[in-house]
Amino acid sequence: MSNEESISHALTVKWKLWLEHDGNYVFGRGAYEILKAVDETGTITEGAMRLGMSYRYAWGVIREIEKKLGARLIETHKGGTVGGGGARVTELGHRLMRIFARVSEQFERVAGETSEKRS
Amino acid sequence: MSNEESISHALTVKWKLWLEHDGNYVFGRGAYEILKAVDETGTITEGAMRLGMSYRYAWGVIREIEKKLGARLIETHKGGTVGGGGARVTELGHRLMRIFARVSEQFERVAGETSEKRS
Repeated sequence: MSNEESISHALTVKWKLWLEHDGNYVFGRGAYEILKAVDETGTITEGAMRLGMSYRYAWGVIREIEKKLGARLIETHKGGTVGGGGARVTELGHRLMRIFARVSEQFERVAGETSEKRS
Repeated sequence: MSNEESISHALTVKWKLWLEHDGNYVFGRGAYEILKAVDETGTITEGAMRLGMSYRYAWGVIREIEKKLGARLIETHKGGTVGGGGARVTELGHRLMRIFARVSEQFERVAGETSEKRS
């Protein structure tokens, strides 16, 4: 294998993806992971715990985005059962998750294909 | 249009792409633009000028990558004509350009499609 070929094989395609609103950064992988964890666990506490974050940090990330957008991504409610309460990802939150996940998957595919067939 | 819909329409998908070699950043949009300009003009001086950069800066960016990879991206030669000399992008340089351009085009397409049909 020539030097150029071996260099070529040690290359990886890397990328970062985010969403902007009116030209300002609003939503990246961190926020996506938090919403996903809240959506799956049904509470911010458990969602944050699953990601190894504090409740305060996770909630702070989401609150920051909500302020920028002027709309809620998560709605909390008091529950009737023991330990009660819970959180629900809003329709807007789900939209952002869908956009982020769809583009990520396609970027992943493109980057993966490129790593396989270098030229 | 609901608030959520209008937010959704003001969102743009943004991304950054780069290549890593053995886990280290080596090649991004800046380097791509420099190689492209050198390739098209045939000299580093004119290539840099076209991009509004100094010769020194453009050449510095490329030299840095060459050091990391231990291989040349640009080869210079003394010309015989007036003002002589010129620069040529190596086969490795062309490979990096091709990978970067191919992935960029596909990312652009994915991001564009997503911006059109939000859900």
